[in-house]
Amino acid sequence: MPDRFVLVLAGGRGERFWPWSRPDRPKQLLPLARGGRSLLAATLERAVALAAPERIVVLTALDLAAAVARECPRGVRVIGESVPRNTAPAIAAAARLFAAEAGDPAFAVLPADQAIDDGAAFAADLALGFERAEREPVLLTFGIPPRGPETSFGYVRRGARLADRLFRVAAFTEKPDLARAQAWVASGEYLWNSGIFVWRCTTLLDALEASRPALAAPLRGLAWQGGDRGFERALAAVFPPLESISIDFAVLERAPNALMLEAAFDWDDLGSWRAWARRQERDARGNVVFGEALALECDRCVVVGDGGLAAAIGLQDMVVVHAEGNTLACRLDDGEGVRRVSEALRSRAAR
Amino acid sequence: MPDRFVLVLAGGRGERFWPWSRPDRPKQLLPLARGGRSLLAATLERAVALAAPERIVVLTALDLAAAVARECPRGVRVIGESVPRNTAPAIAAAARLFAAEAGDPAFAVLPADQAIDDGAAFAADLALGFERAEREPVLLTFGIPPRGPETSFGYVRRGARLADRLFRVAAFTEKPDLARAQAWVASGEYLWNSGIFVWRCTTLLDALEASRPALAAPLRGLAWQGGDRGFERALAAVFPPLESISIDFAVLERAPNALMLEAAFDWDDLGSWRAWARRQERDARGNVVFGEALALECDRCVVVGDGGLAAAIGLQDMVVVHAEGNTLACRLDDGEGVRRVSEALRSRAAR
Repeated sequence: MPDRFVLVLAGGRGERFWPWSRPDRPKQLLPLARGGRSLLAATLERAVALAAPERIVVLTALDLAAAVARECPRGVRVIGESVPRNTAPAIAAAARLFAAEAGDPAFAVLPADQAIDDGAAFAADLALGFERAEREPVLLTFGIPPRGPETSFGYVRRGARLADRLFRVAAFTEKPDLARAQAWVASGEYLWNSGIFVWRCTTLLDALEASRPALAAPLRGLAWQGGDRGFERALAAVFPPLESISIDFAVLERAPNALMLEAAFDWDDLGSWRAWARRQERDARGNVVFGEALALECDRCVVVGDGGLAAAIGLQDMVVVHAEGNTLACRLDDGEGVRRVSEALRSRAAR
Repeated sequence: MPDRFVLVLAGGRGERFWPWSRPDRPKQLLPLARGGRSLLAATLERAVALAAPERIVVLTALDLAAAVARECPRGVRVIGESVPRNTAPAIAAAARLFAAEAGDPAFAVLPADQAIDDGAAFAADLALGFERAEREPVLLTFGIPPRGPETSFGYVRRGARLADRLFRVAAFTEKPDLARAQAWVASGEYLWNSGIFVWRCTTLLDALEASRPALAAPLRGLAWQGGDRGFERALAAVFPPLESISIDFAVLERAPNALMLEAAFDWDDLGSWRAWARRQERDARGNVVFGEALALECDRCVVVGDGGLAAAIGLQDMVVVHAEGNTLACRLDDGEGVRRVSEALRSRAAR
């Protein structure tokens, strides 16, 4: 096996699972994966099938590093960012780290907060991706056949077919409105953008240089001594003035050498309680009951109790969560509800 | 003013406000009264308009005595029962205490967990009751004109009219089923049994002697030294073998000398979240929002946060409560829901 690397991106602070999630225990650290493990632990289990532990690096926020490290198998490296700068600076910095350690290896980028249960299909697809990226200077992304007109994902439009399930990318697109999402899904040409990528270090860095030279330059100057802690200090010196921008915007949308492999593995980014519930075991009346929770005479509800009892009685299609000393109750189909709570709390705090 | 006494009964352990209520902080200690005071504190405010503080005695459970005392104005006496024996033994024991202190005074019995806001009407009606009970050996109860066919209250059927709003009692009745409650309310002859009474000590003790001699005898032997703590020890010695029975069953249902005064004051025993909400201030969309609570895009909901935030989003006619480290979510019209949780918790604990 070549010296393949894996970069796990675990710096998110998603609020969609409030009150279960909180700034110091964000989504990737919650037990949302099958079997009650954290999404991060499950991601790392998939990562160790792709690379040796010492070639797996988890990038996260400095203040999350200790909690993240507790989820990691022995040997996996955790590096903290002093400030968050979205995925483009993080991925480019990791490319420089891996290049310094192994010449010009290929590496996979795995978001730490996604749910994927079919580990064998995942490993096989990633192996295909690695082989292609090691052979050619391509930016390889994984597209997910859409299960519906989802408006919270970006989409990838496929271009010319190169091999079984492998296509040129015709376009990366931002999150659509519902009408557009419906048209795209109906066309059969659009897949969900998974945020999972494989490329060589130089392929990625060259693409960044071409599309975003002002961001590439300071990262070209990244220099460090003393292993991962030294690299952490170098990031702290370089990151603050950098543009905060996603890899999709910074690189992929303009890259002529982007390919898409249509994933054969299951995938969800668990953007809502409903998305999570869809993958959980249910009781006879369709309820997901997790932790210290009671669902009495309820149908199709999600009831979660963590650190206290959540009791739901006689409800239909509701979410009831007791966690971290707070409570949420909303309709299961109210995907934006949690965000409105976060906004209300911030506006209260600001008063 | 004659030496009038007041007995406040504060030993209940009602579970209907779970999770806000708990065994060591039952309904009468919750801030359910107007203005966020406890029902007990509001009851005592009404009591001090009827009698001097040193002639107000609060009977409660020994383990609640300290919490109860914190709600009491200076001078009010708190006496703890080592075991609960329902209202008949408690009231009869208090009658012996008051008789020993003041000959044969009249005393009022006030449950500590009811909501009454019109203090002036209450004081005026109780004064009428005291005057009648001091003049004649009658058992005077207060009837509440029914606001609907409530099935969780006992009813009092009125007999011959003696004066304005004052009637002989034709019958005390147990809680009816809905059809019976509807018929009773339609008849205009039935009022709710408030559980508020006025009588002289000897009138009550004679009535108990006549109707329940086996219960009256051990209480006749009640003897104590050393003030309220001595009385507490005497109760601990006498109470354990006593029958646990309400004053309605033990005395009133068979008493020939029961009178009913139709109350001119507002009254509710707050038997449910809905009953409480009915008396609370509401926001523009009809929500009762109490404590650390958010009701976003909700209508006619009750949202309570005590010791943590309760956030309800996009709901109608629901109860969402976060308190004492637990959460309840149910429909506002589900009066029995809370009890089902208590039963489920007991059955889990028993496993």
